Amino acid sequence: MAISWGVKSFPFTICVHILGVVAAVLVLVWNIHFRGGLAWTSPNKDLIFNVHPVLIVVGFILVSSEAILVYKSIPRSKEYKKLVHLSLQGVALVVAIVAILAAFKFHNENGIDNLYSLHSWLGLTTVILFALQWLIGFVAFWYPGAVENTRSALKPWHIFFGLLTYGLTIATAKLGIQEKLTFLQINSVIGRYSLEALIANSLGLTLVLLGAFVFLAAVVSSR
Amino acid sequence: MAISWGVKSFPFTICVHILGVVAAVLVLVWNIHFRGGLAWTSPNKDLIFNVHPVLIVVGFILVSSEAILVYKSIPRSKEYKKLVHLSLQGVALVVAIVAILAAFKFHNENGIDNLYSLHSWLGLTTVILFALQWLIGFVAFWYPGAVENTRSALKPWHIFFGLLTYGLTIATAKLGIQEKLTFLQINSVIGRYSLEALIANSLGLTLVLLGAFVFLAAVVSSR
Ligand code: HEM
Ligand code: HEM
Repeated sequence: MAISWGVKSFPFTICVHILGVVAAVLVLVWNIHFRGGLAWTSPNKDLIFNVHPVLIVVGFILVSSEAILVYKSIPRSKEYKKLVHLSLQGVALVVAIVAILAAFKFHNENGIDNLYSLHSWLGLTTVILFALQWLIGFVAFWYPGAVENTRSALKPWHIFFGLLTYGLTIATAKLGIQEKLTFLQINSVIGRYSLEALIANSLGLTLVLLGAFVFLAAVVSSR
Repeated sequence: MAISWGVKSFPFTICVHILGVVAAVLVLVWNIHFRGGLAWTSPNKDLIFNVHPVLIVVGFILVSSEAILVYKSIPRSKEYKKLVHLSLQGVALVVAIVAILAAFKFHNENGIDNLYSLHSWLGLTTVILFALQWLIGFVAFWYPGAVENTRSALKPWHIFFGLLTYGLTIATAKLGIQEKLTFLQINSVIGRYSLEALIANSLGLTLVLLGAFVFLAAVVSSR
């Protein structure tokens, strides 16, 4: 089916860039100003945890969003775009793994159980899907590269599973935000309508909006 | 762009039906067996809460999933499919509103704050989007119905926002599951690896899988 959307991707890519900056500011303000900052080793284990959401938002979600948009946002050759796309997605994957290690490190040093929550189950599933998606994409579309027929058969599936995995990443992040806030609120560390809760909830909604614009930019035709 | 997927929607619609049954069983076992059952009025306020997830999963998510699939699953005239689609989505909307009222009722009778969580923010946004989507769809495609040009211009947007809202519904449900479990686990009402937690987490993953198959069935061509 030839779909006519009546609009081009350009305005949506701009929205993604702007919402990306907003999300980065919100996650940094939340974790540095309200949660006390970041550290990989510290007697204050909470600082180790904080590395997790910051890296996920700034280094995984935002990088992966831009990687998806590459096909729409840079006016260069197909090969060039592919290289930028796979490199950015590779960076995002590595950062996601480090971010998850930070969560495990925090759990282990605090004697907290691992992998009990829906957030952690979905998070692990998502990163594994992301890694598979990257590997299959690399082998099929870059090196050694499949024959033309296989490529064009794989392409819609690559796009479908790519956007699905991307959506799961956003969903997982919201679960994480929800979980962290519930921990803080139930122990009355922060209030239910505190500024911090508003900021963290806004981060969640910003990520949803960002995701919606990435989807839009991905499905309409370029420029 | 003419996309060739190489598969038809039929096997995916079957998966959706099966996963729908699994999700219904999981949510019922969770809320009736483990959480004590359902009630609209009761001195045990928790039973009022339980109405919320059960109605959402069985009456909103499953009904809305089948409504999306109507265009792929019943071999009848276009008008007939449209009528079934809009009726099912209408039922889903009404059930969602009742389900949300149950959550408010539970909060109010227990003296708990309303609308503080990311789950509740996203939930309200989602239901409002769902209602708008229904109204616009009704006016444009059913009665009075827009002129042909407008219809075909609106159609991709209707599909895009429909699938987006549907995705948000699944995401919101997961946030709700996560939140409810965190409440129970932090007060040590249930264990982190308890059977109940496994069942509720499995419900979350089942909904994700169900959603993925609905997306697939929606994007590939019918039968
Ligand atoms: C703003 C974003 C996020 C926040 C605030 C957040 C928050 C949390 C919290 C509170 C925990 C510890 C409790 C638990 O095990 O559930 C955790 C663990 C975890 N997170 Fe996240 N998360 C975020 C994003 C993500 C994303 C996007 C992924 C993967 C795609 C992810 C993967 C994990 C995993 C696998 C664990 C388990 C670690 C363990 O059990 O030791 N998180 N996260
Ligand atoms: C399995 C599915 C679900 C579960 C287990 C669940 C769980 C919960 C819980 C624990 C609350 C009370 C705490 C709070 O305010 O956050 C709640 C409230 C709420 N839920 Fe859900 N939920 C589910 C699905 C949904 C869905 C899909 C929507 C809408 C699309 C939704 C909309 C709401 C709203 C608007 C509130 C706020 C009520 C208030 O603040 O008084 N829920 N839910």
